Amino acid sequence: MISPQPYYAVIFISTQSENTIGYSEMATQMEHLAQQQAGYLGMDHARSAIGITISYWKTEADILNWKNNLEHLKAQHLGKKTWYNSYSIRICKVEREYHFKRHED
Amino acid sequence: MISPQPYYAVIFISTQSENTIGYSEMATQMEHLAQQQAGYLGMDHARSAIGITISYWKTEADILNWKNNLEHLKAQHLGKKTWYNSYSIRICKVEREYHFKRHED
Repeated sequence: MISPQPYYAVIFISTQSENTIGYSEMATQMEHLAQQQAGYLGMDHARSAIGITISYWKTEADILNWKNNLEHLKAQHLGKKTWYNSYSIRICKVEREYHFKRHED
Repeated sequence: MISPQPYYAVIFISTQSENTIGYSEMATQMEHLAQQQAGYLGMDHARSAIGITISYWKTEADILNWKNNLEHLKAQHLGKKTWYNSYSIRICKVEREYHFKRHED
């Protein structure tokens, strides 16, 4: 995902509770829903001891719209009630980016 | 890690090559070295299909100093030569943050 800077990133860092029933289905569903939103640019995700999901957006208004999406609000509620022990959300302006890709010999 | 906003985040996203000999020792060493640098605020890391490491810094100058640290330059060189198939680096200004922590019942 390469986009003209500046654009915006939402860094979501979480630790899961012991109850993760329904979590991965919801995560997949939310990823698909995010992709349909205005201003969506992409997403990166990894999970080991903690989970990190970064979504990228054209503008801050796009982030606010996604935050207030009704289906997403339900997912957020379930996340706080059930799936997460803790999370942090950081709203960031992406000012510069660099990319490296190994050349095939 | 909670810090007065704005501060800065470096989002490092990578895919590894098949040769990861020496990688995890170097990653540990670089984490310790980063902690000793001026302006260092914290780090988050997860790896599954991709690796995501986010380091947090007080100022952009702190990021530049860390980028140009001699030991770190050696690690960057080895990373490009050996350990990574690809990576992306994004320099971001953290504008807002929210935290959730489950209350123990």
